[in-house]
Amino acid sequence: MRPGEYLQRVRAQAPLVHCITNYVTVNDCANVLLACGASPIMADDIDEAAEITSLCSGLCINIGTLSRATIPSMYASGKRANELDTPVILDPVGAGASKLRTDVALGLLDEVRFAVIRGNASEIRALAGTSLTTRGVDAAPEDLVTESTLDATVALARSLAKGRGSVVAITGATDIATDGIRTFLIRNGRPEMGRITGTGCQLSALTTAFVAASPDEPLEATVAAICTMGLCGEKAFARMASGDGNSSYRNRIIDDVCNLTPEMLERGAAYELR
Amino acid sequence: MRPGEYLQRVRAQAPLVHCITNYVTVNDCANVLLACGASPIMADDIDEAAEITSLCSGLCINIGTLSRATIPSMYASGKRANELDTPVILDPVGAGASKLRTDVALGLLDEVRFAVIRGNASEIRALAGTSLTTRGVDAAPEDLVTESTLDATVALARSLAKGRGSVVAITGATDIATDGIRTFLIRNGRPEMGRITGTGCQLSALTTAFVAASPDEPLEATVAAICTMGLCGEKAFARMASGDGNSSYRNRIIDDVCNLTPEMLERGAAYELR
Amino acid sequence: MRPGEYLQRVRAQAPLVHCITNYVTVNDCANVLLACGASPIMADDIDEAAEITSLCSGLCINIGTLSRATIPSMYASGKRANELDTPVILDPVGAGASKLRTDVALGLLDEVRFAVIRGNASEIRALAGTSLTTRGVDAAPEDLVTESTLDATVALARSLAKGRGSVVAITGATDIATDGIRTFLIRNGRPEMGRITGTGCQLSALTTAFVAASPDEPLEATVAAICTMGLCGEKAFARMASGDGNSSYRNRIIDDVCNLTPEMLERGAAYELR
Repeated sequence: MRPGEYLQRVRAQAPLVHCITNYVTVNDCANVLLACGASPIMADDIDEAAEITSLCSGLCINIGTLSRATIPSMYASGKRANELDTPVILDPVGAGASKLRTDVALGLLDEVRFAVIRGNASEIRALAGTSLTTRGVDAAPEDLVTESTLDATVALARSLAKGRGSVVAITGATDIATDGIRTFLIRNGRPEMGRITGTGCQLSALTTAFVAASPDEPLEATVAAICTMGLCGEKAFARMASGDGNSSYRNRIIDDVCNLTPEMLERGAAYELR
Repeated sequence: MRPGEYLQRVRAQAPLVHCITNYVTVNDCANVLLACGASPIMADDIDEAAEITSLCSGLCINIGTLSRATIPSMYASGKRANELDTPVILDPVGAGASKLRTDVALGLLDEVRFAVIRGNASEIRALAGTSLTTRGVDAAPEDLVTESTLDATVALARSLAKGRGSVVAITGATDIATDGIRTFLIRNGRPEMGRITGTGCQLSALTTAFVAASPDEPLEATVAAICTMGLCGEKAFARMASGDGNSSYRNRIIDDVCNLTPEMLERGAAYELR
Repeated sequence: MRPGEYLQRVRAQAPLVHCITNYVTVNDCANVLLACGASPIMADDIDEAAEITSLCSGLCINIGTLSRATIPSMYASGKRANELDTPVILDPVGAGASKLRTDVALGLLDEVRFAVIRGNASEIRALAGTSLTTRGVDAAPEDLVTESTLDATVALARSLAKGRGSVVAITGATDIATDGIRTFLIRNGRPEMGRITGTGCQLSALTTAFVAASPDEPLEATVAAICTMGLCGEKAFARMASGDGNSSYRNRIIDDVCNLTPEMLERGAAYELR
């Protein structure tokens, strides 16, 4: 695969991406979508959610700040997207941290067909029913993806991918993306990205844009999106100036997505078929 | 008119501006209001919205993320503002993209007297009942304001302004502001501002501050606000450093609003009475 | 006391901090929590709020954008935190500006035991029932903490602290923190911080992290958090470059929290026991 081509398609098609997402990182999601060449629209009221979905080329459902008012919109938009064959991405933020989050994530998985499910290892484990523990929205220490846990985490991702018929992406020190048959490992990114709120949410939004522009290749599009986010995290880190911290790092990463060319992505993407 | 005077009045009066706005760009709206010298307060619960409005010198209603819970607050605050002769600005984000957005925008126009209605050409067309098509929250390609479509767009703005008794501002490559009789064209700004989420929302918030400080001159105040946002977009773009993208551009624009003096605005404002 | 030690504990323990907070500044609150070494989780739906609280080491309740949907969550989480002896911090944003805000703040004070109450003088006065006037979310001019009003403001803080059994922090040009017996004055900070939305909200979030890591010393932890925010405001201001305004200042302050070492805090903290 050539990751640059997937970015090129986003830039060429400027897909409209519907996000039903949390209010913590929504501004960053909108800006990173614009940075990659997509066009964001946020709408979560039941009286318009499915209608907005029908205008869009992709739907991103992120459960980071669930509310009674918007959960029905997630179902309605997800189902409408399925009817229209519009790809839907799930970011199960904090699944396992509360019964509500786990239940909603599992309920959505039962009623909506997701092109991609993207989370950290703890969240994906909660969806697979093999949760060890929970610690808020970050992966639990025992769930960090290291070389020693890589085999087990790949197996977890493959199992969920097969069970749900979705691409599953588990992001961590090494990122994993699999459709249950083929599995990619991605080694872009920097650990300091974890000090910024919402890099995971941004990646889910980016993934939606990439899959929206390449709906027949969700696995490759997901790998390209993960490489994009990770590579921009590396580039931004290399540009950090004296005094910069996590807030500037956030801005620099989005800036780098804005300035990334397909050629740069092609050169910098660090992925392998496992 | 002298745009700098309108900025000077905002700085001198520090008007308190009530925003019932979307959760995507709300932080930027608050910071740009502080940057121009106003003071923001966000409140959208029906149990306090009208009371908060009564404390304020201006009200900005932005329908970017409508919800059942806050639509009644828009009506209540709008009516209270009308009772108190407090200027109200409408930003019909995404009008035309869903029935809900169009209906709420039209409903508000019927029940609330707006000092200013500010949107892109697609949104304004939806309010005028002459919508061609919709594409999310951005103007549709056929609705871009270019020299060739300028006459028709001015006519659209004038018609809505006369019909509703409001100043109507249509922003695009060339911006239009009219009260139905006099029409200004504003040629500040940069196309790259469209890669930042919420520059339109920020302009609506700024416009509210400017009209709040000059309530008897809503057309001139609107022109001054549009010049402010556009000029700061130019200044910020000129300051872009290597590696900067849309996220830094967002920050730099707000910074430039913060640092803009009435004299700078006076010199840089590019408007003409058509 | 040694402020650096309190920061060191936050860094060492990485407390999980539950925020039920406003949607205007929530992203900044999340990033400043990550910057200081804590881990944020935002959750405000009644179906998960108390459960999320039970995972956390601290709870921050901020009433900046109250809604009917989330007020019950504030009560439920506050009570759960009390059952678990988890410290709870109240930021009564805009108390006094509407009956709803005043009533909710007072209702919470009656039903939840707060480790710390942090607001500006107008907000604290509203809670003490001695409000002079209101002006949105900023302190009224007559409530600014100056040398001439310092004695009266200290008396106000002490009275509320004794009456509620909480540490009370009033922030202004000079900051005050008291448990009703001992009173600290903090002279860090810059007036320009008032041009950024949410520096108060960020301080409340930081305070929650500091108290979560030092639950037996809420007064000292509060003083250390106030020194942290103020000192970083000074450091960031000293680093302001040509063209920077309130948006860059916001980013630089969070960056400085990210880069602050216990030694730097120890050297720069400007507090005194009154």
